[in-house]
Parts: sequence; C-alpha cells; structure tokens
Amino acid sequence: MIPKTIEIIFCDVDGVLTDGNLLISNDGSYSKSFNTKDGYGIIKAIQAGIHIYWITGRKDPATQKRAKELGCPVSFVDGEDKSVAVQKILAELNISKENSVFIGDDIPDLSVLPYVGYFTVPRDAHYKVKENAHMVMSKPGGAGAVRELIDIILDE
Amino acid sequence: MIPKTIEIIFCDVDGVLTDGNLLISNDGSYSKSFNTKDGYGIIKAIQAGIHIYWITGRKDPATQKRAKELGCPVSFVDGEDKSVAVQKILAELNISKENSVFIGDDIPDLSVLPYVGYFTVPRDAHYKVKENAHMVMSKPGGAGAVRELIDIILDE
Amino acid sequence: MIPKTIEIIFCDVDGVLTDGNLLISNDGSYSKSFNTKDGYGIIKAIQAGIHIYWITGRKDPATQKRAKELGCPVSFVDGEDKSVAVQKILAELNISKENSVFIGDDIPDLSVLPYVGYFTVPRDAHYKVKENAHMVMSKPGGAGAVRELIDIILDE
Amino acid sequence: MIPKTIEIIFCDVDGVLTDGNLLISNDGSYSKSFNTKDGYGIIKAIQAGIHIYWITGRKDPATQKRAKELGCPVSFVDGEDKSVAVQKILAELNISKENSVFIGDDIPDLSVLPYVGYFTVPRDAHYKVKENAHMVMSKPGGAGAVRELIDIILDE
Repeated sequence: MIPKTIEIIFCDVDGVLTDGNLLISNDGSYSKSFNTKDGYGIIKAIQAGIHIYWITGRKDPATQKRAKELGCPVSFVDGEDKSVAVQKILAELNISKENSVFIGDDIPDLSVLPYVGYFTVPRDAHYKVKENAHMVMSKPGGAGAVRELIDIILDE
Repeated sequence: MIPKTIEIIFCDVDGVLTDGNLLISNDGSYSKSFNTKDGYGIIKAIQAGIHIYWITGRKDPATQKRAKELGCPVSFVDGEDKSVAVQKILAELNISKENSVFIGDDIPDLSVLPYVGYFTVPRDAHYKVKENAHMVMSKPGGAGAVRELIDIILDE
Repeated sequence: MIPKTIEIIFCDVDGVLTDGNLLISNDGSYSKSFNTKDGYGIIKAIQAGIHIYWITGRKDPATQKRAKELGCPVSFVDGEDKSVAVQKILAELNISKENSVFIGDDIPDLSVLPYVGYFTVPRDAHYKVKENAHMVMSKPGGAGAVRELIDIILDE
Repeated sequence: MIPKTIEIIFCDVDGVLTDGNLLISNDGSYSKSFNTKDGYGIIKAIQAGIHIYWITGRKDPATQKRAKELGCPVSFVDGEDKSVAVQKILAELNISKENSVFIGDDIPDLSVLPYVGYFTVPRDAHYKVKENAHMVMSKPGGAGAVRELIDIILDE
C-alpha cells in the first residue's frame, strides 16, 4: 500500500519514535527513550536517498541529540500547525505530495492529512488518528513502528 | 456513564498519571515517567473549561514540574485523607459533587468515594479499588488512562 | 495457602521489588525502579506488625534509599548464601520457620528453601525457581508481586 | 539443538542484552538497561569455562561498565563487519566454529552467519534475522534472552 516511490518520511517524535514517556527527574531534567531498531532503519533509509524529517511540538535536547546522531533535520512547531512545516519542506525539496508519508500518533498530527500522500500510525496511536490512517503498523511507538514503515518502503 | 457535565477531574499521580514506578539513582534522586498522550488530553480539557487537580500523597519535584508544565494545581496530602482536599477544592470552586470525577488506583483513593460524583480507575488499579469504580479505563496508569477519561468527557 | 500467622516476609530485591533492570548511565551510575503499589503494601504490613526484611546480593544506594524510606532493614549478602542471613534474622527475632515467607526470583534464592515456611515467586521468576515455589504470584517482579503476597497475608 | 560442547557465546548488545532503548537526557547523556537475570547466567557460564564476548557497533560507557562488572571482553566494531571480530577471536582462542554460538537481533548481525556454529535470536529480533536463526529464544532482548541461551548450554 505504501509505494516504493516514497521520497520523504515525516516522523512525529513523542509516541512514534518514543513510547510517549517523559522521564522527569528531581532536578527537573527530562529524558526519553529512542530505539536502536528505528535508528538502524533510519540510517539505511537515508543511505538509500530517502529524506527523513522529524516534526514535533516539543522542543527538547534529547530529541535534538538523537536526530543529529542519525542525521535527521528536526522541525519544532511551537503551537503552530504541523501541516505548515510539511508543506514548506515539500516545496523546498521539490517533492510532490504523492511521494511523501507521515507517521504520527495523536490528534495534532491529523492536520497534515490533506498535504501528504500517505498517513500511517503506530499500533498504539490514539483511536481517532488510527481511523484516518492509510496503514497501521504492527509495532507500537518507540518499539519499531518507524523501522517497520522504512522496511516496507525499502522492501527489506 | 461519565456525563458531559463534569466540571472537575481529580487525578491521583503515582499509578494513574505514571505506571507507579519510581526510578531511584545512585545519588538518591527520584525520576518518574509521565505520558505525552495524557498531557495532550489535559491541555485540551483545560482549554474546554474543565478543572484538573492532581491529588497525591507523594511530594516530589518531578510531579510539580509536570503539573506546572500542564497548568494543573497539585494538592499534596501528607498522610492526610484525600477526601479532605477534594471537599475543600469543590467548595472553593463552588462545584457540586455530581459534576466531579476522580481517577485513582490504590486503597488511599477510596476515601474520596462519598465526596465525588464518579470514581474511575486505570485498568491496572488494585483489585479492591476496581471493585468500587463506576468505570474502569481500558488503558493502564501512565499509558493513557487519564486521556481516555478526558476523551469520554469531551466526547472526542 | 500462605497463612495469616506469617510474622516475617523476606524479599529478594532485583527481579522481585524491581523488574531486574539496571539502568546504567554514561557516567557509570546505576538506577532501578521500585513500584508504589509494593511500597503501600509494605507500609501497611509493617503497621500490622509484620517484619519485612530485604535480602540481596547487590549492594547499591538505590536499594538502601528505598528500603530506608519504607522502613525495611536490608541484608547485603556478598557472595554468601542467603540462607545464612535468613537463619540469623529468624533467630534474632525469635520467629519460627513456619511463620516466615520468602519471595525470590532466581537460583541464588533457592538456598533458603529449607529454612523458611513458605517460598513464593513473582510470575516471571526463573523456571527452576518457580518449580520450587509454594505459590506463584499473578504479577511479575517490580509490578506488584510483593503487594500481592502482602494482600494475601493481610487478607485485604 | 544448541550442543553442550559450546565454548564461546558472542552477544550483540543493543536489542539483545538490552531491549534496544537508548534513554537520552537533557544534558545529552545516554543510559540503557541491562537485566540481572542475564547477569547471573553470564557469571555462571564464565565459571563453567565458557567464553562470553560482547560485539557491538555502539561504543558507550554503559556497555563497558556492565561488561567489566560481569567480566566480559567487548569488541567495538566501528562500522566494520562483525564477522571480522568473530573470526579474529575464534582464531586467538583456538576455538573451532562448531563450538561457537552468536545471539543477535538485527541485520548487521547476519554477517557472522558463515563464521559461527549456531546463530540465535531474542523473540523480538528483526523478522529477517529471525528467518536465519537456528533457534529463537522465548524471551525478548533485555529480558532474559541471553540467560535462556546460557541455560540451554549449561542444561540448567
């Protein structure tokens, strides 16, 4: 269903590249977990020429650190609609809507629906978001959902 | 079952907004995980005019940090009965019992039963607390139980 | 099966009061998670006059911190047989074997078998340890197994 | 299927000795979880004269700390094929291929296939890696998969 002509994958972060948990410490610092299986897939997808952009409403150093390590640009949308970032990136890279896929898990991700070719979700996405997905991954957020999408596109 | 006339949601913290885990480090500091899906629901509920108060027996900076970020007042009940805090808040806000709901997971939460309109629990609540609930969420604590309750009230 | 005449509960720590995970940081520090449901049960059992002793082969500050918070003595057995500590504590407190229960999850815990009245395990204990248990809890280590044992003894 | 003549176990780290999660903090530090049940098995295997070598593409202090605590040498293969490290270690220790087993979870582990006697995977390994395994453990990475392999070899 997701074609091999995909040129760009947009990833929401919390609940997609993570399980949505924010670990908060006594001193007020935040931590979150990213998975190595997703990381391997992202590196392979980029090597295959696919763009991977992270789009998130939550600006934090952990996300920036992991995105940098994997070589992914991050768009922080501060209260702004995620579809604005999606449209801007597609225009800049001159990629048509049909060749783009988004993976998200919650209501704010739905705004991108008219602007991407395919909309996908982790298994544990919010039920209203799942209803709108072209494809539901078999794995939950933070435990391989992004890798699964990449495997489908790369046909690995 | 939970009506749309609810004006206030009381949330226990450990085991409800978290999975009950306290991560303790070598240096004695504590951390705990809050979920972004709950966070999104809380923000939406507050925007819709619903009061969300956290009531907990465990005073810690992580809870205060997350509550502040989401805009929720926190009542720390130090060994004291949680029902005292519930009654005081309802009186201050001039909200009648029928328009209040509590979500809790363990024995100390049961004291509020006579003082709230509805008593709800995460899927993994203690069995004695579950027996007393008007409604059992399909999701466990720390993984969307509070969001589920909010979705029911907001009819999302 | 576990009688209400129990006067002392011996708890292994890693895999029983925790899920067995040791979170190790860049700087070499260790963290581990204890659950608030177990904590509530431990406090109630102590109030009911039951002794709760932790016996572990792994000396670390996180265990000491949590044990102190809950008011439980900890015996660190450094390579030594856990049964030595069990026998010594029973003698000191003048408690007979029949009134003691141990909860453990792995092979080193089996040495206590002849010295306690009852031997119990979390659901996810090692299969060889499970085979020797008088009772298998329905909950896994770190997620309420100790609370479940306490509830049985207190008949809550 | 895995014989008792095994003299060496090669372990991948992320996704095998851990669940693949990398917990990233505000300050950019990384943490990951190792399980005490695996740790106990590793100590027992080494006492029984079995070599346990960790082979990983990810050099980090947490891995080095845990490996040192358990007495396991670690080979960091920086972008290099893991089979090179496997062949070198087998030659140095003068162990024949038939007496070696590898446990891995993702595509980069497949390169060792022609160079080890047995190739095994945790239950949650990548599906392409699972297809190539002589044996699939019943437990996932970070939750006892390595212990299970050791139990089979030691016949515990």
